[in-house]
Amino acid sequence: MSEMLMAPDWQASRWFNTQTPLNLAQLRGRVILLHAFQMLCSGCVSHAIPQAERVHREYAGDGVVVIGLHTVFEHHTAMMPVALEAFLHEYRITHPVGVDVAAAGDPIPATMRLYGMRGTPTLILIDRTGKLRLHEFGRMDDMKLGMRLGQLLAEEAEVVAGQGRRIERR
Amino acid sequence: MSEMLMAPDWQASRWFNTQTPLNLAQLRGRVILLHAFQMLCSGCVSHAIPQAERVHREYAGDGVVVIGLHTVFEHHTAMMPVALEAFLHEYRITHPVGVDVAAAGDPIPATMRLYGMRGTPTLILIDRTGKLRLHEFGRMDDMKLGMRLGQLLAEEAEVVAGQGRRIERR
Amino acid sequence: MSEMLMAPDWQASRWFNTQTPLNLAQLRGRVILLHAFQMLCSGCVSHAIPQAERVHREYAGDGVVVIGLHTVFEHHTAMMPVALEAFLHEYRITHPVGVDVAAAGDPIPATMRLYGMRGTPTLILIDRTGKLRLHEFGRMDDMKLGMRLGQLLAEEAEVVAGQGRRIERR
Amino acid sequence: MSEMLMAPDWQASRWFNTQTPLNLAQLRGRVILLHAFQMLCSGCVSHAIPQAERVHREYAGDGVVVIGLHTVFEHHTAMMPVALEAFLHEYRITHPVGVDVAAAGDPIPATMRLYGMRGTPTLILIDRTGKLRLHEFGRMDDMKLGMRLGQLLAEEAEVVAGQGRRIERR
Repeated sequence: MSEMLMAPDWQASRWFNTQTPLNLAQLRGRVILLHAFQMLCSGCVSHAIPQAERVHREYAGDGVVVIGLHTVFEHHTAMMPVALEAFLHEYRITHPVGVDVAAAGDPIPATMRLYGMRGTPTLILIDRTGKLRLHEFGRMDDMKLGMRLGQLLAEEAEVVAGQGRRIERR
Repeated sequence: MSEMLMAPDWQASRWFNTQTPLNLAQLRGRVILLHAFQMLCSGCVSHAIPQAERVHREYAGDGVVVIGLHTVFEHHTAMMPVALEAFLHEYRITHPVGVDVAAAGDPIPATMRLYGMRGTPTLILIDRTGKLRLHEFGRMDDMKLGMRLGQLLAEEAEVVAGQGRRIERR
Repeated sequence: MSEMLMAPDWQASRWFNTQTPLNLAQLRGRVILLHAFQMLCSGCVSHAIPQAERVHREYAGDGVVVIGLHTVFEHHTAMMPVALEAFLHEYRITHPVGVDVAAAGDPIPATMRLYGMRGTPTLILIDRTGKLRLHEFGRMDDMKLGMRLGQLLAEEAEVVAGQGRRIERR
Repeated sequence: MSEMLMAPDWQASRWFNTQTPLNLAQLRGRVILLHAFQMLCSGCVSHAIPQAERVHREYAGDGVVVIGLHTVFEHHTAMMPVALEAFLHEYRITHPVGVDVAAAGDPIPATMRLYGMRGTPTLILIDRTGKLRLHEFGRMDDMKLGMRLGQLLAEEAEVVAGQGRRIERR
């Protein structure tokens, strides 16, 4: 999937850590970090999930929205929502997490299929205008992620500057 | 529990990574590392379980037997044996793991209760004569664990030396 | 020192890893990461120097110029240029490093004094127009550094966009 | 060099962190960890030296004597005793460190030559009777080092047990 197409919306059958379901339209104007994971995927647990949680805790105030998506495509009976809920509690995850919608007769859930994800963890960045700007499978290091987020966040300053105003961020 | 009493036997309703159930009597003469964990305990997943697996892979040939015990005392529905099985597969755990026996009307399983464990992870070392030599709750660092294992392993040399023979180990 | 002033030029009595001395004027248009260190400062050796080297290796092609400055303010006899040269060789440092100019009768070298640095490591970011945008003493984590670099790098796109052209970077 | 020969004595032209020079004879009955390093060897600085310091701080009370030996075989002018002294101060090294004696016309110092060391870091373990029990070049992990130290420390219990007394250690 090209990285400059409009990002398709995700589908979630259930949400944790948010009062209301989240969708792309309501987040327009923000930079979105969407990370797809499975609670029994060791690379997700050791790296991708804590990294996403950290972005949520440190950069939510700068305009980054972090969303987890539980894309179970194997060991389905071991990763039911009741297990996910215990997992999120034990790992102290505070950012919103949706459960990717199961598709009839397909082990791969709907959003995972829609985005063409290759596995977990997958990291997706969507810019302030809703365009897909990064889609990466596997571990992403902190510096590279920071670099990409910094670039996407700066795009607001650009637009705002064109309107005669500039916002500096630390 | 004093650290020089005989270790009580564990009780497991099911085993993974072993053809036959394991018990203390059949392991007499070996140094036993028994680690109690829960698959959704983050300190277990990040440290205690990989540490135990490493001891198994590197020191089984020196006479250390590593046994995991899944002592579920919370989130029971999230950590059923089917979930544990997926977990062991995903985390590539190859050492034997038993499921601590549930006790009727008690959230704490039988062996956990019997040993008076305070939580997970708990690390227990049993010497070649079946005595309990270490019982520690929480994270144990590699050097300290190596030191204790080295001391317990050396006790064989001691006995054997008394019989006029000495074994050198790497 | 305010973070929006023009950055003053550094002074170096000697350079390593560059054919010609470097100065601010010739780097206008690039984002500059200037890191002040001492070869016997443990926080520099374990974190700041390898972090800077990594930015050099991975982001030089994106327009970041990394410059080390050896700001010796203690143990002067132990950190002479001959020792620094051996250090740079042993630690495989490939980015340009200047030796901050000693000031007569002052243990603190000239650039360190000029910038008002509090110690080592100190990290300084200078934007494409020569303005000082970050001045931080101590350890900076990778994600935060990436974020700041990403923002500064994006400022080129902003200017160029105003000229009717846009550059996308990976 | 076989690992069961008597360890030869080291030669030091100068000592740090000890009032009096140390030699093997006076340490008989203790387990000795001798680590050879260079202050500009990155593997020494990041791993071997802090590991040795940690053994010193945590296990000196159990009968382990930790000794560093500065075996400079390259960049001699960069690693003079004045530089070593600053290094030990900056890295908060508290265990005794000797400077290996320079040999006329040989870049390799005397003890390094005598022990046939291949480079730095080198780790040597000497048992309570003065025998060389381990001689390893390169990085040694904490668990393996703990294991070897535990075995050597246990040999005291063995001897003492033969005299009708037993000492338990934590």
